[in-house]
Amino acid sequence: MPKFQRHIFICCNQREPGHPRGCCDPTGEGRLQKAFKKAVAQRSLKGVVRANKAGCLDQCEHGPNVVVYPEQVWYGHVSVDDVEEIVESHILNGRPVDRLIIPDDCLNNPNCPHRRKK
Amino acid sequence: MPKFQRHIFICCNQREPGHPRGCCDPTGEGRLQKAFKKAVAQRSLKGVVRANKAGCLDQCEHGPNVVVYPEQVWYGHVSVDDVEEIVESHILNGRPVDRLIIPDDCLNNPNCPHRRKK
Repeated sequence: MPKFQRHIFICCNQREPGHPRGCCDPTGEGRLQKAFKKAVAQRSLKGVVRANKAGCLDQCEHGPNVVVYPEQVWYGHVSVDDVEEIVESHILNGRPVDRLIIPDDCLNNPNCPHRRKK
Repeated sequence: MPKFQRHIFICCNQREPGHPRGCCDPTGEGRLQKAFKKAVAQRSLKGVVRANKAGCLDQCEHGPNVVVYPEQVWYGHVSVDDVEEIVESHILNGRPVDRLIIPDDCLNNPNCPHRRKK
């Protein structure tokens, strides 16, 4: 069997309320990951595409965050309502959803202007 | 800031004792992920390489499992004792650790001979 064609990691991290960096899944319900999992399953992509729970992906200011490999496209502020578009456009048709992409300048940048000042 | 040069996902999934597929982190202590995180931090690779908690990666029979992106190299039966070798050889020097690689034939294969028969 082949490797995954695409592996979607959805941050399911929780932090305590009021944490300065926030977190991607404050209620711990994993709704976003479940929505991706369902969208993948509906298209019979099991074993081809995986919608995976992930711990903190460290781009918290932009959360809820999702990263798609192997191309390492980062999405921020992703909601359940965005899942169909990401799966249909990016996962199935190779066209990332530009409006949700986290700018490269923000990734892994302690001085990202979106980080709250302490 | 650049994207991650390498993103290591370490399965931290728990299942109930006796589950036929087993699980990668039965005690829930996350020792393997912590060992990777420490090895990355010791080399001052924060923001360059990330050792990430992951939910089930679905190669359970080969666990504990680790997958390294962007190249999607899959490692199985990884122990804390293997972490330095993976980081030094693969992450720093681009040479995957062959003895730990899960064979392609086993990946995402319901008929993988390593799966326990029900």
